[in-house]
Amino acid sequence: MEMKVSLLMVGDELLIGQVVDTNATWLAQALWQLGIPVVSKITCGDDMDDIVAAIHASFEKGEWVIMTGGLGPTKDDVTKKAIASFFNTELKFHQETYDRIKSYFNALKRPLNELHKEQSFMPENGEIIQNELGTAPAMLFEFGNKRLVSLPGVPYEMKDLFDREIQRRIKAAIPESPYFYSTLRTIGIGESDLSARIDELPVDWDRDISLAYLPDMAQVRLRISAKGVNNKDAMEKVAKARLILKDKLGRWVYGEDNDSLEIVVGRLLLREKKFLVTAESCTGGLIAHSITKVPGASSYFKGSVIAYSNEVKESLLKVPAQTLKDHGAVSEQTVIAMVRGALITLNADIAVAVSGIAGPDGGSEKKPVGLIYIACGDANNVKVTMLQLNKDRQQNVAYASVAALNMIRKFLLGL
Amino acid sequence: MEMKVSLLMVGDELLIGQVVDTNATWLAQALWQLGIPVVSKITCGDDMDDIVAAIHASFEKGEWVIMTGGLGPTKDDVTKKAIASFFNTELKFHQETYDRIKSYFNALKRPLNELHKEQSFMPENGEIIQNELGTAPAMLFEFGNKRLVSLPGVPYEMKDLFDREIQRRIKAAIPESPYFYSTLRTIGIGESDLSARIDELPVDWDRDISLAYLPDMAQVRLRISAKGVNNKDAMEKVAKARLILKDKLGRWVYGEDNDSLEIVVGRLLLREKKFLVTAESCTGGLIAHSITKVPGASSYFKGSVIAYSNEVKESLLKVPAQTLKDHGAVSEQTVIAMVRGALITLNADIAVAVSGIAGPDGGSEKKPVGLIYIACGDANNVKVTMLQLNKDRQQNVAYASVAALNMIRKFLLGL
Repeated sequence: MEMKVSLLMVGDELLIGQVVDTNATWLAQALWQLGIPVVSKITCGDDMDDIVAAIHASFEKGEWVIMTGGLGPTKDDVTKKAIASFFNTELKFHQETYDRIKSYFNALKRPLNELHKEQSFMPENGEIIQNELGTAPAMLFEFGNKRLVSLPGVPYEMKDLFDREIQRRIKAAIPESPYFYSTLRTIGIGESDLSARIDELPVDWDRDISLAYLPDMAQVRLRISAKGVNNKDAMEKVAKARLILKDKLGRWVYGEDNDSLEIVVGRLLLREKKFLVTAESCTGGLIAHSITKVPGASSYFKGSVIAYSNEVKESLLKVPAQTLKDHGAVSEQTVIAMVRGALITLNADIAVAVSGIAGPDGGSEKKPVGLIYIACGDANNVKVTMLQLNKDRQQNVAYASVAALNMIRKFLLGL
Repeated sequence: MEMKVSLLMVGDELLIGQVVDTNATWLAQALWQLGIPVVSKITCGDDMDDIVAAIHASFEKGEWVIMTGGLGPTKDDVTKKAIASFFNTELKFHQETYDRIKSYFNALKRPLNELHKEQSFMPENGEIIQNELGTAPAMLFEFGNKRLVSLPGVPYEMKDLFDREIQRRIKAAIPESPYFYSTLRTIGIGESDLSARIDELPVDWDRDISLAYLPDMAQVRLRISAKGVNNKDAMEKVAKARLILKDKLGRWVYGEDNDSLEIVVGRLLLREKKFLVTAESCTGGLIAHSITKVPGASSYFKGSVIAYSNEVKESLLKVPAQTLKDHGAVSEQTVIAMVRGALITLNADIAVAVSGIAGPDGGSEKKPVGLIYIACGDANNVKVTMLQLNKDRQQNVAYASVAALNMIRKFLLGL
């Protein structure tokens, strides 16, 4: 028997779009890593009747329902009342929770208020699991083969509770999963071209394999999923298919699963024992930020000059005033000079430089919004690319950063 | 009569958490700006039966159902088939769509393939709305007072179609909305303290006002919502409540609605005619990236030195080797020196500097992971803050960036 999970995300802020729901994504990934598919996801507002109805609807799809949100101390949070109503039970004062909240606030040297007393009322039929990073505990309810888990909506509290307490309870309850999936990450090839290439599959291609395409910012992730007789079987099917696909797609594939471009670039730099620096104008530090997301980046990344003004391009990156005058800040000549300047100023082996017009203003007929130059190179050799993007400011910048990371990758691989 | 909208997000990648669903957030915000509440949000996988069932469930909550995703050229996308099944109709070859796709690919100088022909088959009972940024058109179906809208899942295509075509169709169809909401943005005060302050409300406080608290990274957004006899009435109720709350919360409030911290900081710099620069170690460019997200940032931001290595701290930011030796890179003395160095090297009026241990490695007993120093100042006066965070690498960096932006704000306001 397989186990299925439904997610139920509670919060007016999710319905009206005031926050992006990263909790659902994170939980679904964590569950997939246990081989458990999320089969339903419902988002509902902070309304008791709606929550109760959504709990019922969620249990129609999965045996486990994991819900987040609505556990805060303030009056708009009604999840506990809804759960009590679902189980036809009452909220009771829970001393351990109150003591926990008290010591939490004592540690922060902040006073308790009346709301924290209210927050210590819990449904009486559940297991209460204390929250080490905040005040709202998690709850687990068992009835028959079904389980209802309620987690706080604050992302790091939710994650900590899931990792520390919920995960092992799920593992203990489930039979082995027959599912497995893996992802190939491609860059520089569109979804339909990718698909056209893949469609000529070998004759012995396993029909239990399904493929899905996830396009995002110059990249397409290709998800390979299989259901097998057991987890090992599914994993082997996926591994076999992955080899065939990697072979077919060659240099378009830059990584697998959680290999982001910045992780791949970091790995290559480490292998080559080279230090990277960036010289950024329109990307404003986003390339450096991406690179330093990776733990240990200090082993191959020295730093950057963000030269948002021409003054800084001249003073720190030694771009000649004449180059800026003759060709403009957004030009092939300028990004090449930025690479050369960054290599010297920051004393590095490889540099990448970006200059462009992110928009919405600053464009002209000759140099429209979305025009971006990227250069990447070392002391001997500098390559340049021009992009003409048609996105909004933020997306132009994000796309240019991804393209810059890919140029570093290609430079390091000699592609 | 009010109009209600249900969102239906289609895609296995959303259920299994392979992408974060930003479309739902964006759509809900766009609808709220029209005064239309999203009353339901269902996420379902790329499965025909599931999609058909979810369309039915969505229409139980709202008269309009806006769905996204599942319109791509590849085989995993089945939304059009599900819609045809829902309406009990057929998919037919649609010449205009095919011509559109053809000219789109001609412009990119890329060949068409067989999948694009398939992609030109559309349900015959809908209005087809061409996509100017991609290949999958949007569709609108009318039946009675109900509408089904299907949009592509690629975010910028979806947004463009909504803004250009769908929004005015919604406006034409709706009676005036009785809802309005606005947000106060606070920083430096916790959710329950905020609530405790607010709970002593004046006696003439409008009981139709509801408040919600959205905590996120050192900030809490306070949403003030009202339902009135009409939109203007609701707006006036919110405006009155907002004044009362701003007065109660004073300096904790840094902005309203879409005023991000970086927008507020930019506005202050522009007013003071001052130029900002950043000197970043552990934040790796994130502060600069935040500041340059705002269009026109070049009027008050010159650039940054990202000094990830001590070498760059010394060479470009002129941090004395002795300071690094005596106190370490993560110290009050170092961030003060970084501010002073950045002011000179980058020739600016105000600088902010951050140095810390983002984790997961690099901590020691004396200087644990999460220890972060921030300095902000001008040539006359430099202030320093120390944070001890307990989050993961990415969150420590994000939190430090927000705290740095707030220090700039407070410095500019003399707080």
